[in-house]
Amino acid sequence: MLIGEKKFDRAPFRYGIVGGGRTSNVGYKHRLGAMRDNTSFVLTAAAFDLDFDRCKDFGKNLGMDESRLYPDYKTMFEAEAKRPDGIEVVDIATPNFQHFEVCKAALEAGLHVICEKPLFFKIEEGIEIQKLAKEKNRAFCVTYGFSGFDLLSQMRAMILNGDIGDVTMVDLRYAHGFACDPTGDQQAEGQKWRVDPAKSGPSFVLGDLSTHTFYMSELVCPHIRVTELLCDRQSFIKSRAPLEDNAYVLMRYDNGAVGRMWASAVNAGDMSSQHIRIVGTKASLEWNDMHPDELQYQVQGQPIQTLVRAMDYLAPEALEYERLGALHYTGLIESWSNLYNRFAVVMDATDRGDQETIDKMVYPDLAHGVDGIRWVTKCVESADKGAVWVKFDD
Amino acid sequence: MLIGEKKFDRAPFRYGIVGGGRTSNVGYKHRLGAMRDNTSFVLTAAAFDLDFDRCKDFGKNLGMDESRLYPDYKTMFEAEAKRPDGIEVVDIATPNFQHFEVCKAALEAGLHVICEKPLFFKIEEGIEIQKLAKEKNRAFCVTYGFSGFDLLSQMRAMILNGDIGDVTMVDLRYAHGFACDPTGDQQAEGQKWRVDPAKSGPSFVLGDLSTHTFYMSELVCPHIRVTELLCDRQSFIKSRAPLEDNAYVLMRYDNGAVGRMWASAVNAGDMSSQHIRIVGTKASLEWNDMHPDELQYQVQGQPIQTLVRAMDYLAPEALEYERLGALHYTGLIESWSNLYNRFAVVMDATDRGDQETIDKMVYPDLAHGVDGIRWVTKCVESADKGAVWVKFDD
Amino acid sequence: MLIGEKKFDRAPFRYGIVGGGRTSNVGYKHRLGAMRDNTSFVLTAAAFDLDFDRCKDFGKNLGMDESRLYPDYKTMFEAEAKRPDGIEVVDIATPNFQHFEVCKAALEAGLHVICEKPLFFKIEEGIEIQKLAKEKNRAFCVTYGFSGFDLLSQMRAMILNGDIGDVTMVDLRYAHGFACDPTGDQQAEGQKWRVDPAKSGPSFVLGDLSTHTFYMSELVCPHIRVTELLCDRQSFIKSRAPLEDNAYVLMRYDNGAVGRMWASAVNAGDMSSQHIRIVGTKASLEWNDMHPDELQYQVQGQPIQTLVRAMDYLAPEALEYERLGALHYTGLIESWSNLYNRFAVVMDATDRGDQETIDKMVYPDLAHGVDGIRWVTKCVESADKGAVWVKFDD
Amino acid sequence: MLIGEKKFDRAPFRYGIVGGGRTSNVGYKHRLGAMRDNTSFVLTAAAFDLDFDRCKDFGKNLGMDESRLYPDYKTMFEAEAKRPDGIEVVDIATPNFQHFEVCKAALEAGLHVICEKPLFFKIEEGIEIQKLAKEKNRAFCVTYGFSGFDLLSQMRAMILNGDIGDVTMVDLRYAHGFACDPTGDQQAEGQKWRVDPAKSGPSFVLGDLSTHTFYMSELVCPHIRVTELLCDRQSFIKSRAPLEDNAYVLMRYDNGAVGRMWASAVNAGDMSSQHIRIVGTKASLEWNDMHPDELQYQVQGQPIQTLVRAMDYLAPEALEYERLGALHYTGLIESWSNLYNRFAVVMDATDRGDQETIDKMVYPDLAHGVDGIRWVTKCVESADKGAVWVKFDD
Repeated sequence: MLIGEKKFDRAPFRYGIVGGGRTSNVGYKHRLGAMRDNTSFVLTAAAFDLDFDRCKDFGKNLGMDESRLYPDYKTMFEAEAKRPDGIEVVDIATPNFQHFEVCKAALEAGLHVICEKPLFFKIEEGIEIQKLAKEKNRAFCVTYGFSGFDLLSQMRAMILNGDIGDVTMVDLRYAHGFACDPTGDQQAEGQKWRVDPAKSGPSFVLGDLSTHTFYMSELVCPHIRVTELLCDRQSFIKSRAPLEDNAYVLMRYDNGAVGRMWASAVNAGDMSSQHIRIVGTKASLEWNDMHPDELQYQVQGQPIQTLVRAMDYLAPEALEYERLGALHYTGLIESWSNLYNRFAVVMDATDRGDQETIDKMVYPDLAHGVDGIRWVTKCVESADKGAVWVKFDD
Repeated sequence: MLIGEKKFDRAPFRYGIVGGGRTSNVGYKHRLGAMRDNTSFVLTAAAFDLDFDRCKDFGKNLGMDESRLYPDYKTMFEAEAKRPDGIEVVDIATPNFQHFEVCKAALEAGLHVICEKPLFFKIEEGIEIQKLAKEKNRAFCVTYGFSGFDLLSQMRAMILNGDIGDVTMVDLRYAHGFACDPTGDQQAEGQKWRVDPAKSGPSFVLGDLSTHTFYMSELVCPHIRVTELLCDRQSFIKSRAPLEDNAYVLMRYDNGAVGRMWASAVNAGDMSSQHIRIVGTKASLEWNDMHPDELQYQVQGQPIQTLVRAMDYLAPEALEYERLGALHYTGLIESWSNLYNRFAVVMDATDRGDQETIDKMVYPDLAHGVDGIRWVTKCVESADKGAVWVKFDD
Repeated sequence: MLIGEKKFDRAPFRYGIVGGGRTSNVGYKHRLGAMRDNTSFVLTAAAFDLDFDRCKDFGKNLGMDESRLYPDYKTMFEAEAKRPDGIEVVDIATPNFQHFEVCKAALEAGLHVICEKPLFFKIEEGIEIQKLAKEKNRAFCVTYGFSGFDLLSQMRAMILNGDIGDVTMVDLRYAHGFACDPTGDQQAEGQKWRVDPAKSGPSFVLGDLSTHTFYMSELVCPHIRVTELLCDRQSFIKSRAPLEDNAYVLMRYDNGAVGRMWASAVNAGDMSSQHIRIVGTKASLEWNDMHPDELQYQVQGQPIQTLVRAMDYLAPEALEYERLGALHYTGLIESWSNLYNRFAVVMDATDRGDQETIDKMVYPDLAHGVDGIRWVTKCVESADKGAVWVKFDD
Repeated sequence: MLIGEKKFDRAPFRYGIVGGGRTSNVGYKHRLGAMRDNTSFVLTAAAFDLDFDRCKDFGKNLGMDESRLYPDYKTMFEAEAKRPDGIEVVDIATPNFQHFEVCKAALEAGLHVICEKPLFFKIEEGIEIQKLAKEKNRAFCVTYGFSGFDLLSQMRAMILNGDIGDVTMVDLRYAHGFACDPTGDQQAEGQKWRVDPAKSGPSFVLGDLSTHTFYMSELVCPHIRVTELLCDRQSFIKSRAPLEDNAYVLMRYDNGAVGRMWASAVNAGDMSSQHIRIVGTKASLEWNDMHPDELQYQVQGQPIQTLVRAMDYLAPEALEYERLGALHYTGLIESWSNLYNRFAVVMDATDRGDQETIDKMVYPDLAHGVDGIRWVTKCVESADKGAVWVKFDD
């Protein structure tokens, strides 16, 4: 257990945030993830909002120094670069269409980057940023914010340990119903840009939702890779076309496994939206994000087992970030905190040139971010061709 | 509530059974379904087994008259036809490959027919039997044995009543793991013929499992119809090829809805095998056969509702066959009993020429049985072409 | 697996029923329990109802021979005794106040007895019947109808095997809310007599409900016995006083264990009414009758296990009466059928003087029935003294 | 939604902590609760540990200023009082036996107090501190850390709104199995003092566990009060006597309701330890801390409803502290954060003399803390007299 102690030998990283202001739901998660324990990151500067007055008002209310609140990211990067106590890290929580330019500017300014998913609109943009990050030797972390739960680490450990046999099926689902009502498309600030192709990119739910769950599958099954996929997508609310509000995907993997994804924002009434089930030749593992501290382990021919977070019988990987003790159940913020904690360790190791630490760390890095773009790109390509099979890597 | 009273004005139907003997799991369900209340059917004759001694021993142990136990169905039909108290109905619980010939012989002998699913190997066979049944004016009932649960009637009533809005998605699953271990293919009597194409037909899990759940979807959504489907099937146990032990299907419906089916016998460790979720524009309904007396009704933006069998708030259709009262939970046999009860009513109405009763009765009839053949045929066709879209009705 | 075959070498027992007619919910369960497989019992005669016309109409509708339908139990016993094919067993499903006189008359007529719970009003009556049954050498079975579930047999086997360590706590609950509304007391035929002390006896929910669960605790923990108890009872619907509609009981056992019972008909909205949890020094077992095919096995410090009916890993006792196979879930009628099957075996063994079979059979016998009377008597005594501790056996 | 903004117009409160150091599980929760949003409290000073070196090492690792780390609370209060930026609040997370002296010293030093439960050993101590707090005009908050969940606020709002009718039953449970193994009594730092009467007080599980759940019942049912109770307590691990590791309590309330509590640390294998069910004349509400974002609302005769956190249909009280949005599930730390947020508002209002804000705020105050002492005192009194009824307020 950490009990909130620091995992590296330096002061917390000073970070600045772009986007994620007063009306941003996800911005709050970024700040809380970074804040946990107050030992990894300290919120130092921000360009929260296109509306600079709202940015300032919000930042002051958070107790920030007004002089570190900026009208836009460019001004922030420039001003902070001149200070001896300037930011070391940028955290990007804007709508998707801005990710690429802000990432690029941040890396050029010599900052480590934490960026929201889906990363960019095009695979090529991902490859360009990969080159730049390598050249600048900066850490690049992607906030697949659901992926830090302890029991996903357990799932990975068990699968790699062979506890389910060979993986045969990967069943994925991120399907809620909060966009059943089209009025949100006009009225809800967080919804509006997501159904605007100019801001959201080539997809709605494939990018917004399923990239999370697809990364989870990469996290828990790092040893297999999609080779082909087929996607059928729909716009049940017609005004959303060409963006889909529902999509079915079939996958084929390099080891012979097959998989499915269901991404939806019109799965009316569902409150346990994100599920992952990995089937093996002798057992299955199943997890959902409504009850993230429970993991079903189903061995064919044996009693069903429910593993619970924080118990001694778990793998070391599932206990390394555990803070609260058994019976004290966790929520989404613990997942974000675990991720930010790992991000800080990776950044410190990058600064110190400690490649071993970086290589050992399991976290959503730039390669996973690019795979997310690839996922969306290929799904859209398949769907637009009439739901046919397309190669994943070409 | 019935409290077990008769629903028609004649003695119980005398029925004979073909197959379903001592080692048959499903035979027992047929007998129990028919037996419930002892008011609809009476087991009168049987050709239980290819091994006549085992047939006789078993029949006597059930308390049957030895003279009504027969070495095969032909002998039975012939002998019974000569008796004034001969059987009126035949119940066919053999492996799939015999269904066609026994059905044909039964109809020609003037018997009503109750037959196991999947009905036959080919759509043409189904059409031939449809003609014959019409010509002979006999009732033909298919034992989709899971389809008699009261809460499936509730689901149908709510969907037809518009309680979920317009149907947008049909999510189906019959996926267990009991064939993970290939040794059953050699050793288990009930498993052996299922993986032999000569006896099982062109598919394993598509026919054996998913026809049940596909019929359920027809039952609860009678107003929409599949227009196209795409199936990817696998033989994870290689010796089963070309028969699949796992299959993914995508569907498109005539009203714009889409759907999925997952059929599997290698979904390791899963004990709640059969699920059906119907999503509408404003709410969803979800049911699974492990907890058949509960139905989730999820209206977007409202508390999740769990409807429970036998409660007054249910639709009349869901209470018509209810026998036990609230808090007294039911199992699979109640489903079978409800079906057999309806079969008897349909047979009686057929004998009486009461078309109105037949038309009003909701039960798995020959058309549904033929749709099951079509389902398997089209899935196999799609899969064998490389998992491409095929028309459902052509 | 039985697959419905007979367990003894004689024809099914001919039985007559007293009470349990058209409006009786429980009568239907008796008939179905006896009917299962048509190999153990055959319904031969009945005095279903105080209203003889209704009795006849109902019996005929069940397909019974009109000459075996009687206006009352005395006439039935007398007439049947004269027939060579007269009844051998009586099944008593009347309101409680008639149990004693009918049991007595039945034993005196040389019949085996199956009787509803709670048996009688007074412990002394139980002792008198015990003497008479012994003298007449007749089997006496009590329909604690929930006690035949396979997983209760599993629970018993595991506890006796030491799988939970030493028993420390017995937590019992039969608490629903179906009598929240007092209008049922006036209007519902099944409810009216239950709140009338003349017909129901000294208690309402203690007798009607908690005797079931108390017997379950005796079934699964046969090796420990209550020594003292304390009961606080309430009449939340005041017109029911002195009969309680809610009761809390604390127990102390001879091995140092403690226990609790909650009996209620005013636990508003609860649909999973009957629960039993046995805690041991190292693990617990928990079961409820809403999901009777699942048993939680919770070992301290290990993953939670859910055992499922019909699986090979269960104890032989839990598989002996299993008929349907894994994934085919059961309901209350299977529990009743299992009991009736055992009753028939006990009756046959009694007729044959086979004491060994009787001794080995686990079923609710007369001693358990008398313990049920004792349970109610002592609870009421404690409550009426102000909820103080009283000795169980005195 | 707060999105983390400040709720009052001043800088965060500077607080010092007593106890809660490196090995303290609960200390971490205090720090995280206080830290949320970095807008309410700032950790300024600490006397974490009896071992001063460990205190310093730990504090530095948390990034604290070494000069604000103290060997004991007296030194801390004295030194901080001399600083213009000295602490304003003390947070007490020591073993129980120190609570009284530290609270007294803190109030005398003019500090607001946040103190762990159970407060003190004797009711008189509670009354003395009540007087002192009033005299010094300081806020006093008790960390019933599970009581800040949004859905407990919902439960309270619904009960006060009459949604369940009149309260008839209060069913409480905090029963886990983590002390089944007695070796923890010798070896686990957090367990050792809890089974030592000198440090823990007159009880183990009644104080350590059930005070939480009892406060919850006061929170959700503020309009009724226990008048009498009866407690039977056991030491299943004999070396713990006279401290109980299990206790059953029965309660009677001033409105005619009745209740139960089960407190246990030997309920082997249970992972959903804390449950609260409130039954009313027409409906019930049930919540457990394993799935704290779900609330069951069971209206007799209607479908079961599950209310989910963050949904618009909830009462304003259940949404006031909501931060994450629907589908983003919370854990124990959100509960602590909500409490600390309220504590800060109460402290600010106390400083400003704003009695209206204080009166409106729903939080565990000193009166609730004293009720917790009373609860333990009366339970122990009843148990030690042989489990007899005792008055609650005398």
